[in-house]
Amino acid sequence: MKKIAIGQAGGPTAVINATLAGFVDQVMESCELLFVEGGYEGLVKERFLQGDYSINDWVLKHRNVPGACLESGRFPFDQQAIETAVYNLRKHSVDTLVFIGGNGTMEALSKVSKEADRQGFKLQVLGLPKTVDNDLGATDHAPGFSSAAKYIAETTKNMSRDLYSMKNFEQVRVLETMGRNAGWLAAASGVFKEYPEEGPHFIAVPEVSLNKEELLASVRQALHLYGYAIVVVSEGVKWKEESQVEINQVGGRKILGGISKVIGEFLNRELNVNTRAELLGMNQRSSSSSVSPVDALEAYQIGKTGGRWVQEDQNNVMVAVKRKPSNCYTISMTPVNLKDVIKEGERCMPQTFIKNKDAYYTWLMPLLGGDKPSYPPLSKRRVVYCENSN
Amino acid sequence: MKKIAIGQAGGPTAVINATLAGFVDQVMESCELLFVEGGYEGLVKERFLQGDYSINDWVLKHRNVPGACLESGRFPFDQQAIETAVYNLRKHSVDTLVFIGGNGTMEALSKVSKEADRQGFKLQVLGLPKTVDNDLGATDHAPGFSSAAKYIAETTKNMSRDLYSMKNFEQVRVLETMGRNAGWLAAASGVFKEYPEEGPHFIAVPEVSLNKEELLASVRQALHLYGYAIVVVSEGVKWKEESQVEINQVGGRKILGGISKVIGEFLNRELNVNTRAELLGMNQRSSSSSVSPVDALEAYQIGKTGGRWVQEDQNNVMVAVKRKPSNCYTISMTPVNLKDVIKEGERCMPQTFIKNKDAYYTWLMPLLGGDKPSYPPLSKRRVVYCENSN
Repeated sequence: MKKIAIGQAGGPTAVINATLAGFVDQVMESCELLFVEGGYEGLVKERFLQGDYSINDWVLKHRNVPGACLESGRFPFDQQAIETAVYNLRKHSVDTLVFIGGNGTMEALSKVSKEADRQGFKLQVLGLPKTVDNDLGATDHAPGFSSAAKYIAETTKNMSRDLYSMKNFEQVRVLETMGRNAGWLAAASGVFKEYPEEGPHFIAVPEVSLNKEELLASVRQALHLYGYAIVVVSEGVKWKEESQVEINQVGGRKILGGISKVIGEFLNRELNVNTRAELLGMNQRSSSSSVSPVDALEAYQIGKTGGRWVQEDQNNVMVAVKRKPSNCYTISMTPVNLKDVIKEGERCMPQTFIKNKDAYYTWLMPLLGGDKPSYPPLSKRRVVYCENSN
Repeated sequence: MKKIAIGQAGGPTAVINATLAGFVDQVMESCELLFVEGGYEGLVKERFLQGDYSINDWVLKHRNVPGACLESGRFPFDQQAIETAVYNLRKHSVDTLVFIGGNGTMEALSKVSKEADRQGFKLQVLGLPKTVDNDLGATDHAPGFSSAAKYIAETTKNMSRDLYSMKNFEQVRVLETMGRNAGWLAAASGVFKEYPEEGPHFIAVPEVSLNKEELLASVRQALHLYGYAIVVVSEGVKWKEESQVEINQVGGRKILGGISKVIGEFLNRELNVNTRAELLGMNQRSSSSSVSPVDALEAYQIGKTGGRWVQEDQNNVMVAVKRKPSNCYTISMTPVNLKDVIKEGERCMPQTFIKNKDAYYTWLMPLLGGDKPSYPPLSKRRVVYCENSN
């Protein structure tokens, strides 16, 4: 009976537990499970939890709960830590190590595998993908992203309605999404847009330096035509020839963010309009009411597939998603070598999608698991009865 | 045939259009409608829109759309403005003025009524309630509040799961809700809490000055027992003997907010923990996926009731909600005099609810339109197999 250690790493998502539940569901009858608590730190500090009936059941019940139920977190996984991790895995006679994570996790797994080899310890490793940013390579997309994209698209559409209501008081709102180097999430803000008058009226992604003139022109035009403007930017966006903006929010610890405030202040100075900057925050990755049903199901299926591949002795691979060539959206799971994932690095948006948002939205819509929400137009398409006549 | 002018005022909500749609649905066959665009400003600047078939239909289609479709906004409604408003209503032979709004709107309607009287112009006025803060008096609660409360309760529960996952990296999150002088929303953050280990671990409302020692004790205890802490504060909270915190976010314009950052920095200094402050932002009032079905229905029913009362010649009243004495949640609509609403002023939370959160949650739950979401406990209630043994 194989003994499998499984953990979760990095920033959680709304569906990371669905992947864990899918994996456990697949293997719990034929394998022995050891849950690693607290991500890499748990590997190093031997925070292992035997998967008996009650623990397995507890994990399965998290299928629709956001956050990483095993705790994921961040931990410096240096050579010393890797050696300790392998030592601990040997000590507990672990046959297989499975981690759910992003780019860093695939790299970590690969290093653990090499260290085990070096020690002559036979260890199977397998990665299950997770990301909100969609910056994981070698896969069409990864669980977590679609739900975050849906949250941002809904928010942008709703905020358009909200700000339109208030435009005699406040004219510009700058929404800041997650996305350090990849603009998938910020660009997703427009996927539910139905009318030119609806926001977003300008999107900035980290792949392209922010051009002041283009930003001003777009906002000016929206103000002129609709009386308000919604700007959406990734946290990693920077002005031409400047660096990324950080905020000192977390008591001395610097985190990326705050470019929305800088842009809001710039627009206020240049256009003399009232602006508000808004960080969309942790709900992007943890909202339970905006989860994409496609994302939730795929996350689970990826976990199950990973379980099957462990049983089939696949090694050093990540479960990747491939679209089948078809008119309707269907996917298959395909194993990719960890080294191929690592080689791709942080995957940015391709130029075709940056230049042609409609192509991006055609790609994105099936992942959101439903039709575009349909709202009536903002303007009444009607001459006002009597305006400013006094 | 009565000629009714109707408008929306102040900050929009997720269900303010449902109230408008209910009203229009009730009266459109028996009355002539004139839509006022842009709230009080529209009254003064004569932005009136004749309610023909297509416009009425357009309004009805907004029933489930957030934001105020007629535009609401803010506008200084001084004596001069009131006189101009009455002049415009006379000019268009309006019989009835109806506005959907909060405390300021009920006061505005009352002033318009008095000015019409003074001019010898027969004008019926009626107010339809709307608030996210729940600070409108003379009613059990008002549309908009329940959906905002539900959004905050869901967010707090989900963020508990999110932060618990990350507690080796970040230990405290301070969430800031709307609520200038009333703590209904911040206090609602705990209504979905199932276990002591789930957040919120400390709630601060503006009705009570924030006590540093109490805050520290609660956060210390949560950190000790669960390894992380969620603090929820109203934007209007202030430290003992200090004033409310403002942020200069909107290009020179000061808005309330930022106390979460101050508290986060304080906790970082005192407890040496990583903290993050998060403003929950405009989704509190505009999220479409967290709308309470009870709120959406009541908002519509309040609009319909207002329409009936206009037909029945009620004057100078607001539609208020009364709970029927019953084991299950049932309400009746009752007319209250505008002057009684105004007399109550901004309604804060009663001491009974501040002191006894369970009593508040018993009162609140029926407004959220469903059961408490059920998640498994955070802790595995199980001894860890082997911890820190090396």
